[in-house]
Amino acid sequence: MKAKKLSRKGTIMRSRIIHAAMKVFAAYGFKGASTSIIAKEAGIESSHIFIYFKSKKELYLTVLEKFTKDQHKFIFNPYYFSIKNDPELQVRTLLSNWILFLAHNPDYLRLYRWEISNGNSFLLQLKSKPLISKDPFTVELYKVLCEGVDKGVFNPTAKRVETFVSLNNICFGLFVRMEFFQELGLDVVKLAKADANYRNYIIDLCLKLVKC
Amino acid sequence: MKAKKLSRKGTIMRSRIIHAAMKVFAAYGFKGASTSIIAKEAGIESSHIFIYFKSKKELYLTVLEKFTKDQHKFIFNPYYFSIKNDPELQVRTLLSNWILFLAHNPDYLRLYRWEISNGNSFLLQLKSKPLISKDPFTVELYKVLCEGVDKGVFNPTAKRVETFVSLNNICFGLFVRMEFFQELGLDVVKLAKADANYRNYIIDLCLKLVKC
Repeated sequence: MKAKKLSRKGTIMRSRIIHAAMKVFAAYGFKGASTSIIAKEAGIESSHIFIYFKSKKELYLTVLEKFTKDQHKFIFNPYYFSIKNDPELQVRTLLSNWILFLAHNPDYLRLYRWEISNGNSFLLQLKSKPLISKDPFTVELYKVLCEGVDKGVFNPTAKRVETFVSLNNICFGLFVRMEFFQELGLDVVKLAKADANYRNYIIDLCLKLVKC
Repeated sequence: MKAKKLSRKGTIMRSRIIHAAMKVFAAYGFKGASTSIIAKEAGIESSHIFIYFKSKKELYLTVLEKFTKDQHKFIFNPYYFSIKNDPELQVRTLLSNWILFLAHNPDYLRLYRWEISNGNSFLLQLKSKPLISKDPFTVELYKVLCEGVDKGVFNPTAKRVETFVSLNNICFGLFVRMEFFQELGLDVVKLAKADANYRNYIIDLCLKLVKC
């Protein structure tokens, strides 16, 4: 049931269910989470969930879609739109915003790690397909890299998908394997949240791969 | 129960259980796999598993340990030991062997993806801690990078843990997010297995981050 058809009370209830579901799916994954745990987290009866969502799967897809929309809203902010025509600054800003969003949304990250272990089976069912080729962030980053090549700021290999994915891996991989880096003495989340120098260092590494 | 205490027949049976467990744990993860599915895969009675392993957990840790040992045997091969004193070639060889091992062992990769979604909870319990700081591969790669800096082949930032992990992410991240790259038109596993040019391109990107 879509939010727009709901009363004010219904909209609040639906949003409460989605927020509880975010936490529970992040903690247990799709298979491990049950609607009864989600209902308990939201402080409601299990049956109420099915007034707003046909199934656990519909609720899960709604959560994924919401996270993705939040991410895009955060990344494509007014500042980003003010720096068109400067591909290097655009890449810096895209990556920096992305790192910041990931560092500040631990439940989003945990959900993604569940998706990864399941071969992105649900992500591939979404219309917006976050982190996948049709996702606005991925499309924008690739477009800006190509523009940089055309303007002579980036080297031609920036257009190669292997270069693009490597740059993507440098940033996203940090968060996917947080425990690995913790063992090596890096608290990635803490550093990314608080330290602009750290974010810039990581982004500089990415730019090394593409700058002329 | 350790293999060395077993009769010949017992050793064969234990190995059969481990191989069945590899497949089943890779497919369902630790929580999703049951000893009865593993027994069925091995073509034995469930109760037989507990002659050789105290618990599902002990069997899981044995599987992880076996994969890790296989990985190290593959990576640290006689050729690798023949190229000491050439840090650049050593890095190339370490990364190339690692990529090849990952591409040829899909069950190992799937198991790792389960570990990632669980915060590496079991990997951290292993003595050898694969992919973590005390793991021989990680230790060797870092050591060789430092040697390269001392010899003036690599730039000083190669000693920074952020550089090391970025290089690590470029290679390992490819396999962790295979579906993402498939959506972008890259069959990472196929390319890594068959195409030395592809592996070299990825390794060249890594070396861009550290070479003087």
